[in-house]
Amino acid sequence: MSDKNIPYKIHLTEDELPKAWYNVRADMKTDHRPILNPGTLKPMNPEDLAPVFCDELVKQELNDKDRFIEIPAPVRDFYKMYRPSPLVRAYFLEKELGTPAKIYYKYEGGNTSGSHKLNSAIAQAYYAHAQGLKGVTTETGAGQWGTALSMACGYFGLDCRVYMVKVSAEQKPYRKAVMETYGATVTPSPSNTTQIGQKILADDPNTTGSLGCAISEAVEAAVTSEGYRYVLGSVLNQVLIHQSIIGLEAKAAMEKYSQYPDIIIGCAGGGSNLGGLMAPFMADRLTGKASPYFIAVEPASCPSLTRGKFAYDFCDTGKVTPLAKMYTLGSSFIPASNHAGGLRYHGMSPILSQLYHDGYLDEARAVGQMSVFEAAKLFARVEGLLPAPESAHAIRATIDEAIKCRETGEAKTILFGLTGTGYFDMSAYMQFNSGAMEDYIPTDADLQRGFAGLPD
Amino acid sequence: MSDKNIPYKIHLTEDELPKAWYNVRADMKTDHRPILNPGTLKPMNPEDLAPVFCDELVKQELNDKDRFIEIPAPVRDFYKMYRPSPLVRAYFLEKELGTPAKIYYKYEGGNTSGSHKLNSAIAQAYYAHAQGLKGVTTETGAGQWGTALSMACGYFGLDCRVYMVKVSAEQKPYRKAVMETYGATVTPSPSNTTQIGQKILADDPNTTGSLGCAISEAVEAAVTSEGYRYVLGSVLNQVLIHQSIIGLEAKAAMEKYSQYPDIIIGCAGGGSNLGGLMAPFMADRLTGKASPYFIAVEPASCPSLTRGKFAYDFCDTGKVTPLAKMYTLGSSFIPASNHAGGLRYHGMSPILSQLYHDGYLDEARAVGQMSVFEAAKLFARVEGLLPAPESAHAIRATIDEAIKCRETGEAKTILFGLTGTGYFDMSAYMQFNSGAMEDYIPTDADLQRGFAGLPD
Repeated sequence: MSDKNIPYKIHLTEDELPKAWYNVRADMKTDHRPILNPGTLKPMNPEDLAPVFCDELVKQELNDKDRFIEIPAPVRDFYKMYRPSPLVRAYFLEKELGTPAKIYYKYEGGNTSGSHKLNSAIAQAYYAHAQGLKGVTTETGAGQWGTALSMACGYFGLDCRVYMVKVSAEQKPYRKAVMETYGATVTPSPSNTTQIGQKILADDPNTTGSLGCAISEAVEAAVTSEGYRYVLGSVLNQVLIHQSIIGLEAKAAMEKYSQYPDIIIGCAGGGSNLGGLMAPFMADRLTGKASPYFIAVEPASCPSLTRGKFAYDFCDTGKVTPLAKMYTLGSSFIPASNHAGGLRYHGMSPILSQLYHDGYLDEARAVGQMSVFEAAKLFARVEGLLPAPESAHAIRATIDEAIKCRETGEAKTILFGLTGTGYFDMSAYMQFNSGAMEDYIPTDADLQRGFAGLPD
Repeated sequence: MSDKNIPYKIHLTEDELPKAWYNVRADMKTDHRPILNPGTLKPMNPEDLAPVFCDELVKQELNDKDRFIEIPAPVRDFYKMYRPSPLVRAYFLEKELGTPAKIYYKYEGGNTSGSHKLNSAIAQAYYAHAQGLKGVTTETGAGQWGTALSMACGYFGLDCRVYMVKVSAEQKPYRKAVMETYGATVTPSPSNTTQIGQKILADDPNTTGSLGCAISEAVEAAVTSEGYRYVLGSVLNQVLIHQSIIGLEAKAAMEKYSQYPDIIIGCAGGGSNLGGLMAPFMADRLTGKASPYFIAVEPASCPSLTRGKFAYDFCDTGKVTPLAKMYTLGSSFIPASNHAGGLRYHGMSPILSQLYHDGYLDEARAVGQMSVFEAAKLFARVEGLLPAPESAHAIRATIDEAIKCRETGEAKTILFGLTGTGYFDMSAYMQFNSGAMEDYIPTDADLQRGFAGLPD
């Protein structure tokens, strides 16, 4: 193997675990537009948000000044269970592709939740616990966020109520079982346990559910239960702050070996992984220190960045949440039921949306699921890790970039986020292995139906 | 947290990855009795074994002289994908239990096969590949070994045929899917694809299968297919040699912090994990350098060490394999179908059996599955890792020893093997969570039926 001075896995020590998260908004040239109160259409203030989010998380959500936010000691302690996570040099993949590119991936799947989501879950559970709350409500799609939150709540002894997108709950009974093992209550959504769920079911009794529906239910459950707040695993500013730990560690690990990425690639559903991975590198870009090229990879079946509109929209289907300025397919958009992986949210993090709009996030790329699973299987065989379908979107783009390097002879350094493992996604792999999977690309007419529901 | 100078996770560097496996037989005071040819009842020689095992593995199987066996470079390269594996100080568990004990675990679940089995799978696949074979056959119970072998064969481009115990194949469809994703062919056993399978089915059409049956089928498939050999994931001397890497790394990591275990605990089915974990510490014991206390933990429903006989027995149900001198419940013994985890083999590694017989392996302990899942859930909540039911047997005994330390005030150092994760065992967790699980302890009459089949 080449670069013998660089190990296959780069581990930071526990002393090198970052002591503060990074808040990219402090460095953004144009801050994203504020979230709006759905009743008044005026910017939300802390008082508006207090019934929904924990007090400390409200502050983080609205914080556009502080570049660094200290990680509380109990959160750092918990992080030590599974962090610093390894940065891996994908020597085996490089060899398989015959590419001169140097490929690195930050591996976030080595914890029981199986993904990076635990980074924010433990922070949010900590703040809820510190505020003396009884519990939290949330939604989950593929199940990674719900699992992470269940673990975090189990650790702090908080009650955890998860609304799980119905089609995912059916496809992934074992995800549900893990959450229950950690003490959470899991309700397939839409359900009859909330008014908004009842309404959605009345309108379409056969709906397979969506993240947007599940968010509506979870928010309603939180605001109608004493001592509960709502927590969200992606999209929000606070989540991107917590996830910055991915990028901070990756950057520190690369610096140890005098490496710096030319290209940074992440899958993008709500934007938490890419937002976290890119954060400190984006700081370099925004402050003129370096110019890495950023690529967001999304499913062709749910193409919010590549085919969505940059507009104010609700964060949920039931239209109970604030409005955010973001790339969106419309809050009523639901990906085709044959879409196998996660990344099924109708919108995109306002921070990522603004950075994309302003040209700092250089490229968004939509890929079909057939090519994604093909990349996943190749990666599993040569690198020994079976990736989550979400993560495999980034692998697809990485392989394509590495092949370009083979053709041009350029030895570019590529960093991508391997957000999680696919152990609970085997029904999707079975579908692919059996030849029953197919690509689905929404027509322009499909998208128009989603756009028609956008607020004026 | 105490012992602040010892991190939560101790990582060796890739340079510290052992360059040779350790062969405990070279240091054993009494070597175990030789395996016997089932036809002649004479000790097997290399020629007898050549049709079944790869040539190099035959040498390792019969090697009682060399203390160290070099790890081939391609195997070391592959090891770097997931090794050295972390040694974890279980600070969170210590705190939860309020024990003065210092608890360490060697975590082998951080690879896609989800267990330590990959350590031997990659070695065996390498030797098969180096010999120019087309493929290998094997059996799998809970599925960890079959998954590991599928990954190893996928890496070297070998064909892989897995006979999977029928009840496990039904309980764990996703394990099967992972193996297929890595290109393996998986057949529930007993099957109609072999003569021995047909015979077993004719005798008992409703059998749920057993490891012993599946071994018979896999051996028959190997010896009747041109260019194939049989490989086994536990029990054999060669497997314990490969698994010594667990103990070698654990010992090196503890030495870095001047730690040495007072108690070493491992779950024991066929004996590969405990045999590997204990190996270099057993060397100290056998050569008088130190006297750690060794505990093997087995399921009360399959109690080969605690209630079995030390006798020559077949390694399989169909009686096609050699006979080994070992603790055994009889090759026809099949654990009750409500037994949820792995560790369902009727016998125990001849090396471990001899060490137990001679008093070097100090204690064997049988535990009921209810108490095992209780320990598993506690561990999952406080240490953030959802263990395999197999591994949770060791956790159960560790917790019990740590509680004893709390009562006596002794600050003993405990090392246990966390062999794998439980992500593919969620149906068992669901059974436990729902209250549907119960303990099963075979009656003396049950055991007598197994013993009745022992050869004279």
